[in-house]
Amino acid sequence: MDKFPATLVIDLDRIKKNYHIFCDLAGDSCAVSGVVKADGYGLGAAPVAAVLNEEGCRDYFVATPEEGAEIREIVAADSRIYVLNGYYRGFEAEYAHYNLIPVLNSLEEIGRYKNGPCVLHFNTGMNRLGIGAAETKKILDDKSVLKGKEVHCVMSHFACADEKDHPMNRTQFEKFSQIAKHFPGAKKSMANSAGAFLSSDYHFDMIRPGAGIYGLNPQNDKENPVQGVVELRAQILQTVPVAKGETVGYGASYKFEKDTVLATVSLGYADGILRSSSDKGHLFWNGVALPVRGRVSMDLLTVDLGGLPEQGRPRAGDELEVIGPHQSADKLAAAAGTIGYEILTSLGLRYERVYRYEAAVNMVASAGSISA
Amino acid sequence: MDKFPATLVIDLDRIKKNYHIFCDLAGDSCAVSGVVKADGYGLGAAPVAAVLNEEGCRDYFVATPEEGAEIREIVAADSRIYVLNGYYRGFEAEYAHYNLIPVLNSLEEIGRYKNGPCVLHFNTGMNRLGIGAAETKKILDDKSVLKGKEVHCVMSHFACADEKDHPMNRTQFEKFSQIAKHFPGAKKSMANSAGAFLSSDYHFDMIRPGAGIYGLNPQNDKENPVQGVVELRAQILQTVPVAKGETVGYGASYKFEKDTVLATVSLGYADGILRSSSDKGHLFWNGVALPVRGRVSMDLLTVDLGGLPEQGRPRAGDELEVIGPHQSADKLAAAAGTIGYEILTSLGLRYERVYRYEAAVNMVASAGSISA
Repeated sequence: MDKFPATLVIDLDRIKKNYHIFCDLAGDSCAVSGVVKADGYGLGAAPVAAVLNEEGCRDYFVATPEEGAEIREIVAADSRIYVLNGYYRGFEAEYAHYNLIPVLNSLEEIGRYKNGPCVLHFNTGMNRLGIGAAETKKILDDKSVLKGKEVHCVMSHFACADEKDHPMNRTQFEKFSQIAKHFPGAKKSMANSAGAFLSSDYHFDMIRPGAGIYGLNPQNDKENPVQGVVELRAQILQTVPVAKGETVGYGASYKFEKDTVLATVSLGYADGILRSSSDKGHLFWNGVALPVRGRVSMDLLTVDLGGLPEQGRPRAGDELEVIGPHQSADKLAAAAGTIGYEILTSLGLRYERVYRYEAAVNMVASAGSISA
Repeated sequence: MDKFPATLVIDLDRIKKNYHIFCDLAGDSCAVSGVVKADGYGLGAAPVAAVLNEEGCRDYFVATPEEGAEIREIVAADSRIYVLNGYYRGFEAEYAHYNLIPVLNSLEEIGRYKNGPCVLHFNTGMNRLGIGAAETKKILDDKSVLKGKEVHCVMSHFACADEKDHPMNRTQFEKFSQIAKHFPGAKKSMANSAGAFLSSDYHFDMIRPGAGIYGLNPQNDKENPVQGVVELRAQILQTVPVAKGETVGYGASYKFEKDTVLATVSLGYADGILRSSSDKGHLFWNGVALPVRGRVSMDLLTVDLGGLPEQGRPRAGDELEVIGPHQSADKLAAAAGTIGYEILTSLGLRYERVYRYEAAVNMVASAGSISA
């Protein structure tokens, strides 16, 4: 059966629009890459890559070789697919077979990668992956370690670009600029979505927007410059009258102070509605926020209809808005104490995924994912 | 490519053992059903159902019709598959086609379900799904609403069974017992894993262990009576020396008080390591706990190797234990402020899933899921 009781609409036209917002921001001399790691932030790497490919994107970032392999046949043959997490041991043949370019993060990786195109990633303060200060000095002192390698691009990654006044932004930029000038033949890249909006200084030759492409707000303190791309709706299975003093859900965590009516919705933490939104999050009915009551369970959650007039309440079979015009993924995330990224990557498999794409549905369908 | 840099081992032999722990607990006169909703708590409904089927299980609980359809061909033809979330609108033909038995949660559902086998679920205080007090009275006063329906089973569900002294346990039991005696021909079922361990009074004719089958501890305050079934290991991509005063990760949330070395691991919140375990969780190396430093990001996390003697530190390429002998899913969950269930259902797709099953690998493989 290929039929699900909850619907996840992914608007590829908006992904396209968001991509062009970054293209406009970047201008003619700066490329805009497509970041499609983690299955395209949970929304489907294949259809997203297919759309970005149509829009002229020729540089893709994934986290693992398996993610690179997944999009290899979807993007134009001359597209570059970079594996951010590096040159995984035991996958050497796959990089070659699928024409994947490793992002080399250490001298050790540089040593293992004998020949071919690569990206060099310099750690300027994120301290997660990347060539550190001591190793950077060694490379700059003696570039013979790079023999046989074509350095397509040198890159670094911001730790705090979503906080515009954070001093690390400038420090990281300056460190990277110093290193980058030693690689005049390579493209330079530093900015994620937040960095791209922060300053054109940070654009260099290629920006790498992830969050912004997927409609998440890249900037903590400003109105979202991009459009949300997800609509998530779920069905009310039942309405449940409860009396003052009664409780709901596991652990009886919520006690009602007055009589009310609950709506039990076919959606739980197995569907990406994080358990940390228990007693905190909201779903929406005709634009009205309905508070989550009690613990979110694996397959179900309950919201309070008491704030609505009796005649205006939804009934079993009606669909509530989880993500959409009244609630962004970022807002749903904030109630759960996290960020929109984690919501998107947690959505799971129990949805009918509907891809909206006005331009060329057939093209995406042939990529095998339009009705994944 | 069907090759992943992180390995998730699911031990079907232990699932089998755990199932038999419940069979022993239940005794000869009580059936033990298989709860395989949410893709078998994230571990694969198909292989889990195949194993339980071999062990004689003939009653299965799923949340949605689509989940029921998935296991229909895997379990014996005479197995009963119950859809807990009810009789979904628009799926009526699928219930019939896949021989799925709806759990009817309201008079409205009873009305829509014209004929055939069903379960009646009475709400005794969970207030999530189930026939409420007023509707229950109507049914007991006039059973003609059940005409044409074969009531296989009557059930209810505990809200607080993991807290042994919670007064709701007894109250719910008594309410259910009162109702159940009106259905002498139907099986009676109330207990989840926790309820099954709490008291044999709660067993009735069928128990419904979920958590316990999957190795999660069903009881808050006691040693785990079942065995963990998951081993999760992930590769270190790089070790990163950091100096006193430096920070790591997004938001520079963790500042080091002394020089140390980090290990960056190929695992992030897109893989079920919840972002709420940032600066809180641990991974293990040779049984030693390595604290997570900084924010967990989408595809990566970093742990501190500073607690290990220099000679005993793991290196790039080594695998750390995420879930295994030193850290249960429950323990990993506790650090993230949640429960093991949410960890299991969030594991995602970027693993090589290895199913351990000594008895009949071929049987499971033919179910199409052994190397999912």
